[in-house]
Amino acid sequence: MTNPTACLLVIGNEVLSGRTRDANVQFLATRLGEIGIPLREVRVIPDVRETIIATVNEVRPKFDHVFTTGGIGPTHDDITSECVAAAFGVPWEPHPEAWARLDRHYKPGEFNPARQRMATMPRGATLINNAISIAPGFTIGNVHVLAGVPRIMQAMFESLAPTLQGGPPIASRTVHADGAMEGRIAEGLAEIQRRWPALDIGSYPYYRMGGGGVALVAKGTDAEEVEAAARAMTTLLRAIGCHPVQGEPPQ
Amino acid sequence: MTNPTACLLVIGNEVLSGRTRDANVQFLATRLGEIGIPLREVRVIPDVRETIIATVNEVRPKFDHVFTTGGIGPTHDDITSECVAAAFGVPWEPHPEAWARLDRHYKPGEFNPARQRMATMPRGATLINNAISIAPGFTIGNVHVLAGVPRIMQAMFESLAPTLQGGPPIASRTVHADGAMEGRIAEGLAEIQRRWPALDIGSYPYYRMGGGGVALVAKGTDAEEVEAAARAMTTLLRAIGCHPVQGEPPQ
Repeated sequence: MTNPTACLLVIGNEVLSGRTRDANVQFLATRLGEIGIPLREVRVIPDVRETIIATVNEVRPKFDHVFTTGGIGPTHDDITSECVAAAFGVPWEPHPEAWARLDRHYKPGEFNPARQRMATMPRGATLINNAISIAPGFTIGNVHVLAGVPRIMQAMFESLAPTLQGGPPIASRTVHADGAMEGRIAEGLAEIQRRWPALDIGSYPYYRMGGGGVALVAKGTDAEEVEAAARAMTTLLRAIGCHPVQGEPPQ
Repeated sequence: MTNPTACLLVIGNEVLSGRTRDANVQFLATRLGEIGIPLREVRVIPDVRETIIATVNEVRPKFDHVFTTGGIGPTHDDITSECVAAAFGVPWEPHPEAWARLDRHYKPGEFNPARQRMATMPRGATLINNAISIAPGFTIGNVHVLAGVPRIMQAMFESLAPTLQGGPPIASRTVHADGAMEGRIAEGLAEIQRRWPALDIGSYPYYRMGGGGVALVAKGTDAEEVEAAARAMTTLLRAIGCHPVQGEPPQ
């Protein structure tokens, strides 16, 4: 069985301008890996209608799941929801259940037209609960539309996660060694990759005060192969006189 | 005069697996904005040959500049350079100047085949200096190939920046107010956007212990328009009883 795949669209000018450092990619990458739906691509795109529509339609046939973050609030630059409706070619209209939840939440007179936009969704959307700030996300087809604020996005994802059918979980082992240099282990590491072609073998130099080293990572769905590759990586690092340690290097 | 545009390709499985939190997008977004080459799209893609080649060829006609980070080290998973050669349809071959720099840098016998890969580049590449760890990046056509390690990437970018022809700088003003809620200012903010259609008007809620609020941002190349919009945003926040402050909210 192969794993289903995921693509993430980070929608928002604030990441592209450098104002905001994205905090959602790492969370979703980690959680999707844990449930066996590896993240295969991320795109950061601006709040531009044509770009959002074209990108949604480009990626939704290429991946099993598409997640979006950002652009579902009440202000004029929050256009993700209406663009997803346009991408699917369906009306963007009040969602009765979302409308009812927000109407209950606000005081009389405060559920104004701007806030009503947060209860307006593509026809056929299924709600994703928002335990933090009420206004829901939604799923249509294989596209899951989440908030951009990390705390709200995470709550929405955890509400959605039990409904996602993942593949086998990805096993991972990391070995690191201070003083190791990529240029000295590259040939041996390439041999390890050739020996276990189904694994993903990565090499990541790290730098810190007083030196640095290399972290080697083996990943794959066959846990025994991952263990065997980790032993081979340990042997490789010892052979160049280093003292390998299991796990990530301390930050 | 319109601004030239940039696209960034972050190449590496480690960001897609969640192992590493990208640190390059925000730096490049900020610096490119400062020199008037706004970043319009980011893609994070895996170390997969066909994906890298197809993505480079998809984006290089769409943007004035394409930057890549990651995948130019000596190990088997560092395949950016050879993929860029394939994307341009040119040979991937030893670059005499890069070769000479690395040959001088390593002790006799240590400039091994793995390290020689770092001096192998698409024919016609122009070197980008690396003041930190010698092995250069390069430019071919409108594609600038940088390291993935942030410290090295930043040094390479600063070496390259004086050669990039930017457009007018982007002026920006931010006003924030504790206690402000997007749903109460959305209509007034949309009016401000309509009044200055050439500006990019953004609204970003923030959350912290004891409350939160909204930060409003006006950006554009006409500094006077940006100032006028910032004054209008201040008036809007006062009208709902808040006390707006110039600048970003404290973290």
